[in-house]
Amino acid sequence: MKRMKCIISYDGTGFFGYQIQPGKRTVQQEIEAVLKRMHKGEEVRIYASGRTDAGVHAQGQVIHFDTPLEIAQERWIAALNTQLPEDIAVHHAEAVSPKFHARYDVVSKEYRYRVMLGRGKNVFLRHYAHFYPYSLNIEAIEAAIQHLKGTHDFTSFCSAKTEIEDKVRTIYEIDVQQQGEEIIFRFIGNGFLYNMVRIMVGTLLDVGQGKLHADEIPSILKQMDRRSAGKTAPGHGLYLWQVNY
Amino acid sequence: MKRMKCIISYDGTGFFGYQIQPGKRTVQQEIEAVLKRMHKGEEVRIYASGRTDAGVHAQGQVIHFDTPLEIAQERWIAALNTQLPEDIAVHHAEAVSPKFHARYDVVSKEYRYRVMLGRGKNVFLRHYAHFYPYSLNIEAIEAAIQHLKGTHDFTSFCSAKTEIEDKVRTIYEIDVQQQGEEIIFRFIGNGFLYNMVRIMVGTLLDVGQGKLHADEIPSILKQMDRRSAGKTAPGHGLYLWQVNY
Repeated sequence: MKRMKCIISYDGTGFFGYQIQPGKRTVQQEIEAVLKRMHKGEEVRIYASGRTDAGVHAQGQVIHFDTPLEIAQERWIAALNTQLPEDIAVHHAEAVSPKFHARYDVVSKEYRYRVMLGRGKNVFLRHYAHFYPYSLNIEAIEAAIQHLKGTHDFTSFCSAKTEIEDKVRTIYEIDVQQQGEEIIFRFIGNGFLYNMVRIMVGTLLDVGQGKLHADEIPSILKQMDRRSAGKTAPGHGLYLWQVNY
Repeated sequence: MKRMKCIISYDGTGFFGYQIQPGKRTVQQEIEAVLKRMHKGEEVRIYASGRTDAGVHAQGQVIHFDTPLEIAQERWIAALNTQLPEDIAVHHAEAVSPKFHARYDVVSKEYRYRVMLGRGKNVFLRHYAHFYPYSLNIEAIEAAIQHLKGTHDFTSFCSAKTEIEDKVRTIYEIDVQQQGEEIIFRFIGNGFLYNMVRIMVGTLLDVGQGKLHADEIPSILKQMDRRSAGKTAPGHGLYLWQVNY
């Protein structure tokens, strides 16, 4: 048995998220179906760094699985890509220690979030960016970002449904870059709670529009109440960009 | 009656091309369905600068139609966009002379064609660029372009099915730009025959790969035989970019 680690990307548009759900098309189901075929009907379970929701994209999701197949490392990429659908791609495959775990060994993750500020309907980005046709005060957003960085209890910034007890996470870096009519948020942290990036984006957009003041962020964090933060920004603007081990 | 001219864009992925075909989803059918609803069941025929094939995109297609509706110019855009599907957008609408015709009055058109040279599978561009994972000699392509520019009989560069008699067209400008792993072709001409841009791209890619020499282009033109030129590049890399009147 060899443990394989793969870096994959997917266009989230056609999936009900990463995780298997009966009767729904998911990323995990598509990959496991291909592996099952390669393993002559034997089920092969894959483990990802974490799930992604419906519509959310991945540029650098990481998975692992165990296999008895004797396939050279470089052949794995081609073997998987030819059998996987067009909206899932494998970019890297390597044999790793059997102790490696795609989820438990994560040291940090990077997410990106694309926002289109243009007023026009854009047919080419409708699945790939959140349309938010407002003028934003980027300096105010940058001021708010300073309050989110660091180690905090992010209860206010995660879905009320989150079952995990410990909601303390550390965000190493957040930045926002404007490129023409588009802004891109980048978040790097040791872990992110359910919907956390999307709620931070929703809140930062409120700040950018002047609905909320940057200096209110510390009190939102302190309230530890989901209702005190902004809306959850839609999934299709979000990209799981990179996972570090 | 007022004649309206509109500039529209569409993502060609979900359409069997521009023109109405029974039982198929097309751009013309979607727009005419919305206009019929706006005109209380009355059929409104739209006329475009030209058709586009299945999978081909438009950044700046132009259409016209006649309407008795008294809607202010700037309200037309919003009225159409809210009712049209997400993959068709109206960017501009204006009342024009009843003599204006979206097809017959075209002075020139610009098409663009995106080619991805990267070797990796790219889930985000699969519908928006032609994947061509080879090293290309851009200087050779530029030399070939010089032979295509100008006024020629383009019989060799159009589908053998073309019924139009006069196959002489003038190409004012062709250029190719490299941006990282991507190259973008730009074609501006007084008119383009059926599949003409896609066959020119297929032929230029042959030149870039060294399968064909740039200096062979004049003889390909002279042969007036579709079989002498290169393959028809796929539709999903092509964009009708702008129509000039």
